[in-house]
Amino acid sequence: MTDVFAHPWLSGLFADAEAQAIWSAGGDLSRMIAFEAAWSRALGTSGAVEVSVAEVAAKAIEDWQPDMALLRDGTAKDGLPVPALVRALKATAGDAADAVHAGATSQDVMDSALSLALVQTVDLLAGRVDALQTALANLSDRFGGAEITGRTRMQDALSIRAGTRIAAWSSPLPRHADRLSELRSRVAVIQIGGPVGDRRNIPEELVADVAHQLGLSPAPCWHSARDTVAEAGAVFAGIAGSCGKIGQDMALMAQDRTLALNGGGGSSAMPHKINPVRAELLVTLARFAVAQTAALTGALVHEQERSGAAWALEWMTIPQLAVATAKALATAAELCEDVAGIG
Amino acid sequence: MTDVFAHPWLSGLFADAEAQAIWSAGGDLSRMIAFEAAWSRALGTSGAVEVSVAEVAAKAIEDWQPDMALLRDGTAKDGLPVPALVRALKATAGDAADAVHAGATSQDVMDSALSLALVQTVDLLAGRVDALQTALANLSDRFGGAEITGRTRMQDALSIRAGTRIAAWSSPLPRHADRLSELRSRVAVIQIGGPVGDRRNIPEELVADVAHQLGLSPAPCWHSARDTVAEAGAVFAGIAGSCGKIGQDMALMAQDRTLALNGGGGSSAMPHKINPVRAELLVTLARFAVAQTAALTGALVHEQERSGAAWALEWMTIPQLAVATAKALATAAELCEDVAGIG
Amino acid sequence: MTDVFAHPWLSGLFADAEAQAIWSAGGDLSRMIAFEAAWSRALGTSGAVEVSVAEVAAKAIEDWQPDMALLRDGTAKDGLPVPALVRALKATAGDAADAVHAGATSQDVMDSALSLALVQTVDLLAGRVDALQTALANLSDRFGGAEITGRTRMQDALSIRAGTRIAAWSSPLPRHADRLSELRSRVAVIQIGGPVGDRRNIPEELVADVAHQLGLSPAPCWHSARDTVAEAGAVFAGIAGSCGKIGQDMALMAQDRTLALNGGGGSSAMPHKINPVRAELLVTLARFAVAQTAALTGALVHEQERSGAAWALEWMTIPQLAVATAKALATAAELCEDVAGIG
Amino acid sequence: MTDVFAHPWLSGLFADAEAQAIWSAGGDLSRMIAFEAAWSRALGTSGAVEVSVAEVAAKAIEDWQPDMALLRDGTAKDGLPVPALVRALKATAGDAADAVHAGATSQDVMDSALSLALVQTVDLLAGRVDALQTALANLSDRFGGAEITGRTRMQDALSIRAGTRIAAWSSPLPRHADRLSELRSRVAVIQIGGPVGDRRNIPEELVADVAHQLGLSPAPCWHSARDTVAEAGAVFAGIAGSCGKIGQDMALMAQDRTLALNGGGGSSAMPHKINPVRAELLVTLARFAVAQTAALTGALVHEQERSGAAWALEWMTIPQLAVATAKALATAAELCEDVAGIG
Repeated sequence: MTDVFAHPWLSGLFADAEAQAIWSAGGDLSRMIAFEAAWSRALGTSGAVEVSVAEVAAKAIEDWQPDMALLRDGTAKDGLPVPALVRALKATAGDAADAVHAGATSQDVMDSALSLALVQTVDLLAGRVDALQTALANLSDRFGGAEITGRTRMQDALSIRAGTRIAAWSSPLPRHADRLSELRSRVAVIQIGGPVGDRRNIPEELVADVAHQLGLSPAPCWHSARDTVAEAGAVFAGIAGSCGKIGQDMALMAQDRTLALNGGGGSSAMPHKINPVRAELLVTLARFAVAQTAALTGALVHEQERSGAAWALEWMTIPQLAVATAKALATAAELCEDVAGIG
Repeated sequence: MTDVFAHPWLSGLFADAEAQAIWSAGGDLSRMIAFEAAWSRALGTSGAVEVSVAEVAAKAIEDWQPDMALLRDGTAKDGLPVPALVRALKATAGDAADAVHAGATSQDVMDSALSLALVQTVDLLAGRVDALQTALANLSDRFGGAEITGRTRMQDALSIRAGTRIAAWSSPLPRHADRLSELRSRVAVIQIGGPVGDRRNIPEELVADVAHQLGLSPAPCWHSARDTVAEAGAVFAGIAGSCGKIGQDMALMAQDRTLALNGGGGSSAMPHKINPVRAELLVTLARFAVAQTAALTGALVHEQERSGAAWALEWMTIPQLAVATAKALATAAELCEDVAGIG
Repeated sequence: MTDVFAHPWLSGLFADAEAQAIWSAGGDLSRMIAFEAAWSRALGTSGAVEVSVAEVAAKAIEDWQPDMALLRDGTAKDGLPVPALVRALKATAGDAADAVHAGATSQDVMDSALSLALVQTVDLLAGRVDALQTALANLSDRFGGAEITGRTRMQDALSIRAGTRIAAWSSPLPRHADRLSELRSRVAVIQIGGPVGDRRNIPEELVADVAHQLGLSPAPCWHSARDTVAEAGAVFAGIAGSCGKIGQDMALMAQDRTLALNGGGGSSAMPHKINPVRAELLVTLARFAVAQTAALTGALVHEQERSGAAWALEWMTIPQLAVATAKALATAAELCEDVAGIG
Repeated sequence: MTDVFAHPWLSGLFADAEAQAIWSAGGDLSRMIAFEAAWSRALGTSGAVEVSVAEVAAKAIEDWQPDMALLRDGTAKDGLPVPALVRALKATAGDAADAVHAGATSQDVMDSALSLALVQTVDLLAGRVDALQTALANLSDRFGGAEITGRTRMQDALSIRAGTRIAAWSSPLPRHADRLSELRSRVAVIQIGGPVGDRRNIPEELVADVAHQLGLSPAPCWHSARDTVAEAGAVFAGIAGSCGKIGQDMALMAQDRTLALNGGGGSSAMPHKINPVRAELLVTLARFAVAQTAALTGALVHEQERSGAAWALEWMTIPQLAVATAKALATAAELCEDVAGIG
């Protein structure tokens, strides 16, 4: 039950297959493997090893059969999976072992994988922001002309068109799209620093080559400068918050029957009651996202060249935050389609 | 990767078998089943149905073979598993279906199950607080006499005995034990309110009987009064925070070699380096716990007779918070044993 | 505008004279002076200095005319006011200067003053919890019999008596009273540790004497063990949260005219609108309190013998949290009296 | 003591004159007055009233002698100062009263004033981000060549140049500058919606004219879409977090004497100790900022056309967050200048 997204039954409410696929262990491993293979090939290209040896290493890395028990035992000992992973990859590379991971450090692998995951997430969210705009536009087309009671401070104020309220729900979405775009340009960067982040003995061409292979941009090492990770959290939580406002309003509109929903939830005690469970879910996800992004922002206080404590806090919070935000966008769009009437 | 505790490899660092067993889906289902069976028996005892019919229902409930797909689909529709569960239990009870769940509501089932889980957690934590006190006493026996540099504001101040610092680590633990005990008395209570929390048509004897069967105390309905749930979060986070202080200090002591650790983690780039990964983990868990308990405390703003939004936020945060806190206590005790020298 | 409680106009909404008096600079200085005077007298009683000299010092301390510029300049330099304060007190004590602060450290002064402030706050809150219980009982007497629509998940469920909802609002209050009482016993303790918290050269009788003079209990040094401070924050935020639930419900009841309020706020655009501004304030204060207590709980990760960073975070958050909680209780009670009708 | 920034002595540590001037009550009132005067003039330009009458009103508004007691009493009643302010302005405008506030709502006034304050803050912070970059560049010029111990997971790793660490401190600053610039374009917008946010009877030219007079851009009404306010909080907290990392590192460097500071703080018990109080302050401010921005992000769940509860939470948190962030930047730059040596 520690993971509502993958829980045997709570997943019925919380699961988001696409977002969870990005943040799955398999997804993460494939991104780390991609980094290691790219690194090996770049060692070849940059002349550190023979190109043919590099290719043997890269192929061996890509063909490695994951051994989760090995990674788990390694993480238990080292606090992260990379030392064990590298030993396994070197073993599988055989004579090409010198073309594996040479000069890189654990954080290079895991943070570059994180960049890839964040880019995938940003792209998923951007698509869903668009979809939600469309869903809200459709909702406004269907019911925007209805007169409803405008309320300020939760009290009846003046009559408004439903379209005014729907426009307010929609209004942050272009800004969120801009934020995602701005974030993407900052987050789609390689992490290469070497053991202490100073890139000693790491040529710029190697950095550029690894970045290019992975579809990322070169960038200075950001081992201990986590502002873009925190920004990702903030942008995600902001999106979840804007969805939470939609949910809160829809639940309130359902309360006074301004809004009729198809497919609401049932009650074990009151069979005929319709519960706006997806509207409530949006409020839940918004509040959950706030908590995770607060932890993430706190992780900016990152000691020296690498803080194990602050870094691991990212692992605990970013995936949940990403999935919660993706789920919020999807749920908000579904809710719009569930609306059977307004007014 | 959304659940570090059950993750294929991160679990090597984060897993806590005992705490996760409490908060597993299986554990939760068994507690919900226990409630439903107790409820059926209490319907018999209180005369609402024939005792023999009640017993047939209770037995059928206890023998029910869980159908997770059914619960998941139900949760997808209703926002929680109980309506689907009740339909399944009624079906399995056949002619005794009237002795299933009659008069109860979903929240009665899930919150009573939550009480049981919190009691189990409190007992686990209390045992671990004791174990940590013992581990710290042993540590002080071994190394308490060493002179170390006392530091205030992170700067050298005056020499102190290591035992002074260890005593500071230990000093909150008796208070945490008291808090757990106080919390236990408030949390070990049944939840029975019926559909809107007013216990209409629910006799006090039925409440007392269900509570007695489950080893809980009778109490007024607390559907919308979640202060004790928030208190649980705060007590847990306080414990995690006290463990975080130990971890922070140990990592700092390892830095200047005041403290030597057996079994630290390795580096993929610097093979001979020893990393205090468990000490860092304590800081991570402390900061994670803060975030979750903040969400939980926010869930006190619970609308009307039952807030789906605030309630689901508990589901997202309590299990993680409980497991993180249990793990922190276990890790702190292990760390004490890992200490090879101080001074 | 950084302080809404003392703001030229926002104070109209937020001010709480009693709570702000406790947490005023003047209040804090008087508590620090009380500690220093008690310390001087205890130096006499314990034989460290002549009793008559101790009394001269204590009197001089008590008669000292505060010089805020001096304390501010000292804080600018030292990060806290005590070194400058002690220099001034020694100067004013003249020949009795040796009986001033000898053996104590800044944190002893400020934390003992904090204990006194927290005790005063706990007592204020306990009285207000009682007052709110009375106000809710009166409200129930007046309107508890009215039938209102019980709502779960924000939707109409079944009719309930207003008294059922009011009872739910009231139900956490006896538990909060218990928590305040438990907290009081842990927080009403002296802080004496000396420069690095080991009480070297500080006799137990001196500790006991200073504690006794200040109405506190003796206790081991807690310079770096801040669990009780965090507990205070959690108890306060829990109370604010329970008040927030009342406010949220009242605002919702005003929305559908289940509840009529005297004395609501006006609108600049809609003169005849009545806004339940005090009900909304309760929600605001609850959410504000959560944020502050999260920071405070994070401050449990307190390095070594004294963390300036974690300690100063308490100064930034506790006073606001205490005043917000006190204001929430007062506002909730006032709201009950403002209710002109339910149903 | 509820406001450390303006506290008689804690201000010695926390005060930031420029940032506090922006967020002072006087600053806020001048911005609200500027809005009301611009509104009156725009009523004239748009033909709603005679231009000469509009000018009389605008002048009267600008000449109004603030009456804080009146605003406070109004806030006590209405939950915000604008109704009382408008009554006073209408009174002072005499025959031109119809040219005062006609068609506007309280939120238009206060949120437009907020936009102006945020723009001023963004500009202040942008200048300070630049100044910090310069200070760090100077620090690197002075000491960047020194060899220091690179540390990962708080443990000795490999030797690095001090310039590597300083570059890591500096590396987020260009990104923060970009974020501030992006934020500025979104935040420098007028708020005009009228009573329920639909701009009924408010011509676009009036919106454009008021915006132009105030140096803001026209924009759709954002009464209930607070994503840009939350973004401001996140950007500010991100900056404070990056400064916190500098402070944490400097405190750690001072601990092992890698870094020598001029002008550290003194101790009441250990006169010769130098405390890096400004370095610690950076950590404090970072953690404080996280808490406030969490509250602010939570305020995105804003009910209907205007939530008094969510809105007032902004008032409680933004000013503190803005001042804390500004102070963090200034302190970080001062710290660089205080460095007497590295290595």
